[in-house]
This record gives sequence, structure tokens and C-alpha cells, in this order.
Amino acid sequence: MLDLSPDVIRDVVMRAMAEDIGAGDLSTLGAIPASARAEAAFVFREAGVVCGLPVLRAVFAAVDPALALTALVAEGARVEGGAAVATVAGPARGLLSGERVALNLFQRMSGVATMAARYVEAVAGTKARILDTRKTTPGLRALEKYAVRAGGATNHRFGLYDGVMLKDNHLAILAAQGIGLAEAVRRARAAVGPMVRVEVEVESVEQAAEAAEARADMVLLDNMPPDQLRAAVAVVAGRALTEASGGITLATIRAVAEAGVDYISVGALTHSARALDIGLDIEG
Amino acid sequence: MLDLSPDVIRDVVMRAMAEDIGAGDLSTLGAIPASARAEAAFVFREAGVVCGLPVLRAVFAAVDPALALTALVAEGARVEGGAAVATVAGPARGLLSGERVALNLFQRMSGVATMAARYVEAVAGTKARILDTRKTTPGLRALEKYAVRAGGATNHRFGLYDGVMLKDNHLAILAAQGIGLAEAVRRARAAVGPMVRVEVEVESVEQAAEAAEARADMVLLDNMPPDQLRAAVAVVAGRALTEASGGITLATIRAVAEAGVDYISVGALTHSARALDIGLDIEG
Amino acid sequence: MLDLSPDVIRDVVMRAMAEDIGAGDLSTLGAIPASARAEAAFVFREAGVVCGLPVLRAVFAAVDPALALTALVAEGARVEGGAAVATVAGPARGLLSGERVALNLFQRMSGVATMAARYVEAVAGTKARILDTRKTTPGLRALEKYAVRAGGATNHRFGLYDGVMLKDNHLAILAAQGIGLAEAVRRARAAVGPMVRVEVEVESVEQAAEAAEARADMVLLDNMPPDQLRAAVAVVAGRALTEASGGITLATIRAVAEAGVDYISVGALTHSARALDIGLDIEG
Amino acid sequence: MLDLSPDVIRDVVMRAMAEDIGAGDLSTLGAIPASARAEAAFVFREAGVVCGLPVLRAVFAAVDPALALTALVAEGARVEGGAAVATVAGPARGLLSGERVALNLFQRMSGVATMAARYVEAVAGTKARILDTRKTTPGLRALEKYAVRAGGATNHRFGLYDGVMLKDNHLAILAAQGIGLAEAVRRARAAVGPMVRVEVEVESVEQAAEAAEARADMVLLDNMPPDQLRAAVAVVAGRALTEASGGITLATIRAVAEAGVDYISVGALTHSARALDIGLDIEG
Amino acid sequence: MLDLSPDVIRDVVMRAMAEDIGAGDLSTLGAIPASARAEAAFVFREAGVVCGLPVLRAVFAAVDPALALTALVAEGARVEGGAAVATVAGPARGLLSGERVALNLFQRMSGVATMAARYVEAVAGTKARILDTRKTTPGLRALEKYAVRAGGATNHRFGLYDGVMLKDNHLAILAAQGIGLAEAVRRARAAVGPMVRVEVEVESVEQAAEAAEARADMVLLDNMPPDQLRAAVAVVAGRALTEASGGITLATIRAVAEAGVDYISVGALTHSARALDIGLDIEG
Amino acid sequence: MLDLSPDVIRDVVMRAMAEDIGAGDLSTLGAIPASARAEAAFVFREAGVVCGLPVLRAVFAAVDPALALTALVAEGARVEGGAAVATVAGPARGLLSGERVALNLFQRMSGVATMAARYVEAVAGTKARILDTRKTTPGLRALEKYAVRAGGATNHRFGLYDGVMLKDNHLAILAAQGIGLAEAVRRARAAVGPMVRVEVEVESVEQAAEAAEARADMVLLDNMPPDQLRAAVAVVAGRALTEASGGITLATIRAVAEAGVDYISVGALTHSARALDIGLDIEG
Repeated sequence: MLDLSPDVIRDVVMRAMAEDIGAGDLSTLGAIPASARAEAAFVFREAGVVCGLPVLRAVFAAVDPALALTALVAEGARVEGGAAVATVAGPARGLLSGERVALNLFQRMSGVATMAARYVEAVAGTKARILDTRKTTPGLRALEKYAVRAGGATNHRFGLYDGVMLKDNHLAILAAQGIGLAEAVRRARAAVGPMVRVEVEVESVEQAAEAAEARADMVLLDNMPPDQLRAAVAVVAGRALTEASGGITLATIRAVAEAGVDYISVGALTHSARALDIGLDIEG
Repeated sequence: MLDLSPDVIRDVVMRAMAEDIGAGDLSTLGAIPASARAEAAFVFREAGVVCGLPVLRAVFAAVDPALALTALVAEGARVEGGAAVATVAGPARGLLSGERVALNLFQRMSGVATMAARYVEAVAGTKARILDTRKTTPGLRALEKYAVRAGGATNHRFGLYDGVMLKDNHLAILAAQGIGLAEAVRRARAAVGPMVRVEVEVESVEQAAEAAEARADMVLLDNMPPDQLRAAVAVVAGRALTEASGGITLATIRAVAEAGVDYISVGALTHSARALDIGLDIEG
Repeated sequence: MLDLSPDVIRDVVMRAMAEDIGAGDLSTLGAIPASARAEAAFVFREAGVVCGLPVLRAVFAAVDPALALTALVAEGARVEGGAAVATVAGPARGLLSGERVALNLFQRMSGVATMAARYVEAVAGTKARILDTRKTTPGLRALEKYAVRAGGATNHRFGLYDGVMLKDNHLAILAAQGIGLAEAVRRARAAVGPMVRVEVEVESVEQAAEAAEARADMVLLDNMPPDQLRAAVAVVAGRALTEASGGITLATIRAVAEAGVDYISVGALTHSARALDIGLDIEG
Repeated sequence: MLDLSPDVIRDVVMRAMAEDIGAGDLSTLGAIPASARAEAAFVFREAGVVCGLPVLRAVFAAVDPALALTALVAEGARVEGGAAVATVAGPARGLLSGERVALNLFQRMSGVATMAARYVEAVAGTKARILDTRKTTPGLRALEKYAVRAGGATNHRFGLYDGVMLKDNHLAILAAQGIGLAEAVRRARAAVGPMVRVEVEVESVEQAAEAAEARADMVLLDNMPPDQLRAAVAVVAGRALTEASGGITLATIRAVAEAGVDYISVGALTHSARALDIGLDIEG
Repeated sequence: MLDLSPDVIRDVVMRAMAEDIGAGDLSTLGAIPASARAEAAFVFREAGVVCGLPVLRAVFAAVDPALALTALVAEGARVEGGAAVATVAGPARGLLSGERVALNLFQRMSGVATMAARYVEAVAGTKARILDTRKTTPGLRALEKYAVRAGGATNHRFGLYDGVMLKDNHLAILAAQGIGLAEAVRRARAAVGPMVRVEVEVESVEQAAEAAEARADMVLLDNMPPDQLRAAVAVVAGRALTEASGGITLATIRAVAEAGVDYISVGALTHSARALDIGLDIEG
Repeated sequence: MLDLSPDVIRDVVMRAMAEDIGAGDLSTLGAIPASARAEAAFVFREAGVVCGLPVLRAVFAAVDPALALTALVAEGARVEGGAAVATVAGPARGLLSGERVALNLFQRMSGVATMAARYVEAVAGTKARILDTRKTTPGLRALEKYAVRAGGATNHRFGLYDGVMLKDNHLAILAAQGIGLAEAVRRARAAVGPMVRVEVEVESVEQAAEAAEARADMVLLDNMPPDQLRAAVAVVAGRALTEASGGITLATIRAVAEAGVDYISVGALTHSARALDIGLDIEG
């Protein structure tokens, strides 16, 4: 899986720590002797995909370089509830001051990775691959897209800057200007460089055919039942990649995948992932 | 409810837009004529508490000052599914470029506010007030704590800097130094100024009594069943505020509240709130 | 052509002004009365493409909102030497303090746009389109890529983040790992999402065929004479886009274009564009 | 020559890398194994002055601290085409991710230094020293002024904040207020502290005399042919430093220098320097 | 005493160095050989409390990591005039470039700590503790509050965000709205969370009683003579903490303390502290 | 006097407000109705020079653009104790939230201006001009140097970047390298451009002569009694500007000025200025 850039980690960690620590950690500075040392373990309280070890490392390095983080499993590993996945040892003050930021990030990232892994598993054996969306937490997109990869899924575009996607609202506005779907695809194609792909959202099999003819690189099949998906995939006939989207859940995704689409995008991977239950246990 | 600072809004919005728009919105710049205008409505697709109107305003003002946002309901209002809560009108490019960032923030904030309101409702008629925690999204704490208030709940401290909270891990480390709970409270009290309150986590009724005697301002009763909570509240006897916490859900919270605690803190308000389903519908 | 984001303009302008003005414009504050007003015209001293009017506007707005910039021609217009293209009027201090930053940016952007237009003209009538490269001025990439568009040419990818390009050095390193060109393309394809295109650099007609078979989206034909280019285009046979590059000048580009490639990239557009000669003349 | 501040280097490098790498280097992360190592040499493809070695070091240190840069010649050295001037060795991913930013900066800085050295050589044996101007690349002034020094020339003021320079436009505006050249010099002198020098631009021998009498520290002789320069130098008679400027080229500069001026400023050093041709060759 | 966060130190030091060094230290780079080394001692020229050693360390580490700072006394130590308190040794250029920023911060912090210590001493034997205020130097609050602690005094709230303080101007505005002191206290209490304390300023004994009844946590007794203070303390009767403030000097503070207040706040600690006379002596 | 740049004001104000307001002004948001309006006057409680009106304006504009600041006197005016110098009117919340930051800056700036004016007055009738130093508050140098000008004094260099000043520590280090004062001046002169002045510190009349012969632009006469100053001025004989410095107070400055020096620098102007007593009175 593609690595997370150290710059991105540092930026998120610094911001999170400034937000939490601000003028100083009153509890720790006030009550814990500067000389106290401690060791603690990050323990998964439920099964899941481990995601965020490099972030843990960055948090404790930033709080106090004397803190040592030791990973006990590999990034991306699947573990059971009760598994200790990393330890941190060193000056007690820094360990306590970094605990909450570390857990907030680790729980969220592992939560996303775990949910992604569940969706990937649900379509195992089909050709469909799971995609994320831009429905990410503002400020944490890079981390969440990395967690999606850690869970075995694939990233859609990163932002508005690295791919053209003409969605329902674009098309509605263009229609009011007298510009149809095929013309929209051509306008976008002409405006961007050769390394940019153009995707267009369609709501019917006819539109899917029109998109493929207009040489869209990818066709987003929105909110279609499996039969309609199957028909759309048939008319596209390999001229473009196909992506299904729209309210797809773990319960419904297998049928979508079996309709033959290339990709299925799932906003819930990032916009509604639950924080995984992970604790930090001081070792006696 | 306490207002959200314009500075905080601006900082979050600018960061979110830089993350999403980066080198430019290829789809909009490529396909939508600069002269096109549009109007659209934010529509709640499920019932909930409206939270984030000032953020919507900031997003569109930042994208294009010519865009006008009109709120149709008040911030904090409770609406049914299907309700249009705001409109945005003006240059179509800006409307489209800001759509995703606006929705990402609005859905998250309304999701938190809605969940907070459900917990507040669940304890109606008791004296207990609902508190949030520091288990917030890194980078979005101020927005999420504001959403908690919008839902009718109360904020716990904002960070490590504005209150002392000696939790299980602090106490475990202090115990290894031969420092007990009462001494820990006294150490912290002596180190901080007169405007800082000191809370301490306890795991038994005996510790609750010890904390009250040591003149803690607030006692965190962790993971106690209602009977134990009732006993702890009794021994504290008004000498300190009491807070229950630990895996409390909508199903269990009423019993907790009826045990007589002053506050109940719920991490799920922010760490596991689901994005509310809100759409942006172009108006024909 | 795709517009330049106001955020990008503001960031560059603020940085440039901090760099130039620092602790204050001693000459202007020291010698020019606060009440003095002036009007001045930006005059092209040689023929070229006008590029940077929105930047001029941002510079003077930042120096003093009371300064009014009036464009006399459209952004992207081609003008002769001697043409006045914009005027600025208002408080004399601000006009003088912003002059150098305004000219530095305007001259550079118009220089790039003018050079781009020359290359575009040189291939007129062929199907080849002119591309820029990542050989841009550090910190000014967005402005220079915009100037390239203003000159009628097309942008290649913006950075390492929005397209895969396996160049000679990637391939040399992969070769040392026992990984050949076709395998390299497959590895990259598998790692990225469906909206990302994959280009690969080749040095022979055989490699061009191999790249097309490996389903590269685009093949970079490096430093090939026209005959070899023609042969490479023939073996690719429309399965991928083709791009010629490598030391191509105004003198040689027509022959390259006539060899049938889809794109020709020219690093000199940005790495060696001369500042266009533009003056700011105070009007008597 | 005056060294370049590490802070300045870091700021430019970080900005350039953020601009180029953004959300991640897809090609390298996607295709190059994390374990691959490589070594490469920076090779001058044409003769020139080596300038930017500390910047190369900063780029690779920022990408991956495990990369080692070894300089083979001294900063400021003059080398022939074909000379290897530095090597970089270590993890292949980092080497490839840093390549373009490193080359963009190194080529530009060496280009400026090389051009400066040519001008310095052209006036060898005269007393004239070559000056740069404020016609620098926005955001890169400190680097370009350093490159000017590396080429053996001298820096004029760094910005509007560290010297008074009353130019044609200042004087035109002051004239409209009824303030003449001598009075302008006096006004500026009175407003600034004792460590600030005052230069004034003149267009005739008479004005040069007036400037010297008004006790300007330096007189800018704008666009004067050699004879007029000689006369101006004569009337100034050592009471002020003299600087010639205005469209001076390698072809004309010797005659200007022989007219006896103290300094000659050349905007082209920075506003139109061509990137020097430097490559990064992977070593087999 | 509570430690100063490394982040805060770094931020202040970087800003101060950018302000002072800007485009480069001309004197040092111009006159001092790069190879020169030096050693120097920070010497107190008058008696005082040593405060700022971690800041000195940060300044020199930032200028040149090869510089070694050695503390000769502990942070917070009281020393006599003539005492050497730290040495710095290494490359002479860095030592000289960092000297002024180091001294500016060290003199100010030691000045604040020394003044705080004097006030603490003046009330020795009474129960009163000395508080600082928000009358700090903009941008340096964290450092100055730390210096207050180093001098043995106690910090009041850090900003508007970590405590409620209803002062004369709040009450005057509320009075105009028909809201009295007791109601103001209740409004504030209801709006904030349980970890926030509420203080209110009073100007008479009657108001002090009203504040205590309204359950303010702390009562600010403004500008009261000792007798009135004594009466106010009596009516508050331990129901709230008491704080005296308003133009209190070293000459008057003992009488204030003996009136029995819990705290005395002194704005002069930070708004009018004189820089302590400390020199940096090069060692021969 | 030279104006203060709006950028500088904004930067300082934003930083100061972030420091003070942080997560929000609990007192104001909690107790003051959003609809309340108020008017207040800034009143000098002692005589002094008014300095900081543009900063007040920026503070309130940043807090709430609906607040109107009205200046009642001109910036730089001298007023008596009791004088109202500005009013602010509008939403009460913003007025209260900005009060402390506004006062902290206004009191400090007016304090510096007032002290500068006293020193200027003390040398009235002599030719000596009062200079400030680099002993300013880190982060506030631009504001303090502006306040010095407002008080009628003159600015020395702004930082290490805009003038060469070889002080005792430079000379001590150079001496250890076998480089004397005259050689030091020549080295520095050769390294910097023609707009940079070179000053050197001397400790005897002989050194003053040596400095003048080496063509220093300015000679710093350190800690000399009036007779020695007079002798030094005589040997310099107008070949360089002269500056006296070193522990000069209001009591001793007249004698120094009468010794005939051009400039007298006073570190206390900025390092030990007392905040002027200014209040903000709500108008009934």
C-alpha cells in the first residue's frame, strides 16, 4: 500500500497537539514528578485492522523524543480483541500528555481501515474493487485515504484537482445552459491535460451508453439496482471503467459487485466510520 | 449557546478548502461556463438538529463572495427529513467548488448535534447534564464542542490546558511513585492557579469519599453500575460535583442519570457520530 | 482557459510583498507625502501575450485598497510593443510600493505566456499540442502553468501527486531490481486508483511497443529524431497517447509535430522564459 | 561570499516540496520497492558556476534523512561541461522524489551565478563592480542574491526596507507636488535613521550634480551613453558613489565600466537568467 | 513550578530570530571568519532570579546546532550581581548572531521573575498568594506566566478561554440591560461547563456579599483599602476565594495581604517589569 | 514620521488575539446578550504621547467589523492625564473581547513613545538625535520602533540585516584571530553592497581615530564620559557620524549631547519602558 508522507503526519500531529495541549498539560505538569517513568501498551479492545502506527510514533516523538514506541505487529495487520499492538515507554509526563491525541488518531484510522477491510471482504471473488470518496473528515483526508488503503481498498481521486468528475449537480447546471452530457464530457476533456481522467455520473442505461460514446474514461452509475447496473455495464462494454455508488451497505454490496462493475465507491468508509475501541494500559 | 469564533471557522474552512481544491477544481473550471449561475438548497434527508450554518456561510464566502447563503431555519433548530434549511445562490462555479467541503462539515456538525440532543432527551427530567469529552476529531475540536452545545449538552474542558483531570493512568503512575489519590489532588491543586478546577477519577465508593475529602472539585465515577453510582453520590454528599462515564449508551443512560450524578460524559458524541444525511439540490 | 485560484494569487502576492517590503518602504514613506495621488499605465515595451492582470489587481489591492486597477485589454490578449494594457490610480505611496512586485510577476507570467504562444504557433495545423513540464520556478508553479494555458498550450501533470510518470531514472533503478518496463507499468497501475493515468518514458521503438502492450496510458518518446518518432507512433498505433520531449526548440519543433505525436513537452516554457519588457509609466 | 541562512533554505525547500509532492509521489511509491537503494551524480552538461549545493543537501535531507549528499567540488567553483559536482546515495524512493525540486533550484541558482560571473569578467580590470537589482523571482530573492554573490558580483539593497532609492517614478510624483530632486533627497534623509543610505536616479549630468550637492550617498545614472556617464562621474567628483543602469548587456558593459562608474546594475542577472543544463544520472 | 512547553519556546524563538536576522546577519557573515570559534558567559550585572535558560538553549540550537550551552545554575535560582549563570561555546558566527535575541528574552524573563519574587517576599508569612494578570506582552504571555511561576508567584487564568471573570465593564454593560451582579453570575455559570470557575469583580462590601451568595467561585475586590478588604473577606466568609487588586505596589502590598485575602493580583509583574541587566562576555 | 505597515499590525493583532481569546471568550459569550451594544472611551490616566490608534482600530475590526473606533486626537499627540483619546462603539461582546489586547498594545506603545519624547526633550537645542536599539520586545520590534518615531526619536537599524555594526564582542573574537579594528571594518565593507553602512564600536579616543581612518560610516562611542566623548568627536572630525551609548539616563543625557555627538542611543526606550496607564471606560 502507498505510504503516508512524513510531512502529512507531522502537520496533523502538530495541529492536534496544539489543539489539545495549548498552554500546557496542567494535570501532568502539576501532579506527575518530572523524573517518573512509565511503560504502557496500546491494546485493541475489539478485532480490527491496525492502522496508524507511524502516527503514534510521531505523536510521542513530538511530545518527548525520549519516549520509545515499539510496534508489536505490522501496520495493516488484522488482530483480535485483546491484542497489544504497540508499547510506549519513557518519561511519564510525555506519555500522559500524548495519550489522547495518539488514541484519537489511532482509533479513527483503525476504524476506517477496519470498515474498508469489511467491504473488501464482502466482494471477495468478484472483480469489483472498493473505492473511497471525498466524504472525508476535513483536515484528515490524507490519513483517511491511507487508512482506506491499509484496509485493502483503493483510493478514488484525492480532491478536485486530480481528476474530472461531472456529477448530477454539474450536469443539472449545464443542462440549464443547454449543454448535454456528451458535450460536457468533451468540454472538460478539452480543458485539461492528457494525464487527467474524466468521469461522468449517469442515472440511466441510456446515459451510460452516451457517456461511453463521448469517451468518458469512467462512468459513475448512481443509485442503480443490480439489474440496471448489469445493463449499464453491458452497454459500456469495456469502453470505460464503471463505478457503482449510492447508499451501498455491507448488506447490499455483494449484489452490486456481482452486477459486474469495476469499482464500488462507499462514502461511509470515511464519513461514518466508528472509532475503534483501543486503550492505553499502563504496565504495572 | 456559546457562539463559535469566526477565527476558528475561517481556519477550518481554509484548511478544508486547500485540501479539497488544491491546484484548482478541474471539473468546474473545465466544464462550467464562468457566466453560469445557479441556486441550490441544503435539504435534510433525515430528521436532526441543524448545526453549521455559519460554516456554510464561510465556505461559500471564501469560494466566491458573490455567492449568497440564506438560512431558512435557525442554527440549532430541529427539523424533519425533507426540510430545506438553507439556500445558496450565485455563480455556478463557486457553488459547485464549495459543495463538498460545505457538506462534509455540515453533515458532521449536524450529526454531532443530533446525537447530543438524543442523549439530552434521554435524561430529561433528571438533574443530570450531558458532557462531551476530549475524544474529538483532531483539528475539529472547537466545531464539535460547539455542535455539542447546539444539541443542548454541556462542554467538559477544552483541552489539557483548562482543567486538571487525574485519570486512571495518572493515578497508576503516581501509585508507582508512592503517591496516593489524595496526595495527587493536593499536588495538582498547589501547582495551578485559583481559577482551575481539579477532577479525579475513582473506581470505588471508598475512593469517591477519599476524593471528596481531598477537596477535589469534581469526581469522575468510572464504569460504575447504578447502585454503586448512587452510593458514591451519597458519600460525596455535595462536597464535589459528580460525573459518571464509561461506555454509557442511549439504552443505559437513564438509569445512570437517575442514580443522581450531576454530569454524564459520553465520548461517542464526538468520536463515533455518524454524518447526518444532508444533500445539496440544484433548483431547476 | 482554466482560471487561476484567488487563494493561489493571494499566497504568492503576500509572500512577494513580505519579501520586498519587509519592515517598510523607506523611500516612499520617507519622501512621498501621504496625500499625493498618481496614475500610471502598464506599457508593453515589446510584443507579447498579456498574462497576469488578476495578479496586478491583487498586488495593488493588498498594498492599498484605495488603488484602482483598470484593465485595458483582456487577459490572454496579444499586443504590440507600445501598448498600454492596464492603468492603476490612487494614493501614490501604495502605487510606488507595489510597483516592483507587480512588474516582477507580470513580466514573468507574460514572458511564459508569450513563449508558449510561439511554440503553439510553430505547430499550427498539426495535431500536436504543446505541453509544459514540472521544470517550473519553485513556489510559482500554479502561476506558470496558468501562463502556459494563457499562451494556448496545455498543462502536463501538476506534480508528483496527480499522475504516474516512470522516467529514465525510475526505470534504471527498477532494472537494477530485475523489474522491466512492462512490469513497472503494471506495478504502478495496481497501486493507484482508477482516475490516475500512467505514462512511461521509452528510448526506442521497441520500448514504445512494449509500453503500449503493457497498457500505459501515455508513452514519452525521449530525444528521438523525427523518423524514429514516426516509427514509434506507428507501433503504438493509438493504444496510448504519445508525447515527444527532449531539447526541442522553436527551430526543430515543427518536424517533431509532423512526425505525428499527440503532445510535445517543452521545459524551456518555464525554466528559461525571459521576463517580458513591461514598464509602469507615471502619467503626467 | 556571504552565506545563505539555513532558515531561508528550509523555507524555500519545504514550499517547493509541498508544491511538487503534495499528497504523495505516486510514481515512486507505486513502482519502486521501499527497499531499493540507488546512487546518482549531479552532472553539469555545460560549463558554469556551481551554486546551490547547500540547497541540494536540504532537499534530500527533507525527503529522507537516510540520503547522503557528497559534494565533489566547492560551492562557487567553475566547472566544465561533463563535470560531476555532487553525488547522492541512499533509499531510491527519496532520491527520485527529490530529484525535480533539487534540479529546479540547482539549475536556476547555477544559471544566475554563471551569468553574474560573465558580467564580472567582462569588466575585469576596471574599477566597476556588478550589482544585482530587485528584479528577482518572487519568493526566491534570497537565493538569487546569494547566487549573484557566488558569481562574484555584489548585492544592491535587498528590498524596500534597507535603503532609500528615489527612482524616476518617485521623482515624477514629487514633481507634481512641487518637490524637486534635492528636496526629495533631503526629505528622505530626514525620515530615516543614520544607517540608511539614500540613492537617487538622475537622467542628466545636471541632475547628477544636483544630487551630489544634495548629499545623496549614491547616484543612479540611468540609460546614459558612455560619454554622458563620464561627464556625470566627473561632476559627482567622488561626493557620492555612482551606479550606471539601464539595458546594459555583455556587449555594451565594458564601455560603461570604462566610463568610470563605481557600480553597474544588471537586472538580467535575475530576471532573465536561463536555467543551467544540469542532469542527475543514476549510477549503474 | 510548571514547565514551559518546548513548542512555545520554539515558536517564540523562531519568530524573534526571523525578526532580527531577516535576510542575514551582515556584520557577522561579513567580518567573522567561518572557522572562528568562541566561548562566552552570560553574567548577571545585578541580583535577580535566573529565568530563561531553556530559551537560551533553544536560541543557540536554532542558530547553529554546533553551539553548546552549559547552565551554571538552576532555572529559578537567585543569584547576586556578577554571577555567571551559563556559558555558550562553539562557532563564533552563530554565537554572535544569536546574542541579542537570547539577551532580549533572558533579560525580560529574568526581570519578570525577579519582580515576582520581590512581591512574594513582601507577603511572606501571610496566607496571601501573588497572582499575575492578562496584562502581558502580546505574543509572550506563556513565557511571562512561566517567569511569574519561576519567581514563586501563581498564575491567574491564561486567557479569556479558561475562566469566567466578570469585570467592571461587563457589569456596567449588563446593568444597562437590567441584569444585576447575581444574575450575571448565574448566566455565566449556566453557559459554561463544570470545570470552569466564575469570578466577579465587586466594588463594595455589599457586592462582595451578593457575589458570595450568588455562588461565585472567586470575588475580585477592586481598589479597596485594607479595612474594606477585611470587611469583604468577613462577609464572604470562605464561601468564595478572595482576590485583591488595583494599583497595589511593593509599598502597600503587605497591608493588603494582612487584610486576609487569599490572592493579590499585580499587573505590574508583566506590564511594567524592567529588563534585568545581563551581559554576554566573550571569554579571552 | 514613517507609517506602520498594515501587514505588521494585522500580524501582531491576530497573534495577540489568538493568544488571549483561544477557544473563546467565556465571560462575554456566557454573560453578555448578543444584542447588547455599548460605547466606551480610551482615557489616558496620566500625561503622555498617544501611540497605537491604528492598532486599536485593527483590534476591534478583527473582533467584530461592526465596532466603530473614533479617534479624538491625532496619533502622536501629547495629552494630559484625564484626556479621552478615542471611543469605540458597537456590539458589546466584541468591545469586551477586544479590550485587553487593545489596552496591552496601546499602553505599551504609548509608554515607549512617551519615554522617547522625554529623551528628545532632554537634548532639545543640541544637535544630538535620540536613537533606539535592537533591545526590543521579541515579536514587537516594528511596533516599538514606530512608537520611538512617534515620540520624535530616530530609528537605528531594524535588525542584523540592514546595517553592519561591529561591536565589542565582534572585535574581541576578531582580535583572537589576529584581526584588528581597521581590518574588521575593511572586511565588512568588502562583503556588503554599496547601500549598507558600517558602524564600529570603540572604547577609546585612539580607536575612534582608527575607525574614522578606516572609513567607518559611524563610530559608536561606548560608555565614555563627556570629556572623552568630546575628544572622540574631535578626532573623528566629521569623517564619520558619531553615536554615544551605554547606560545613559535622563539625568545624564544632556551632558552627553553637549559633548557634540550626532546620535545618542538609549536601550531603555524599548527594553524597560513602563506601560502607560490608560483605561477603557464604558459610557453610561
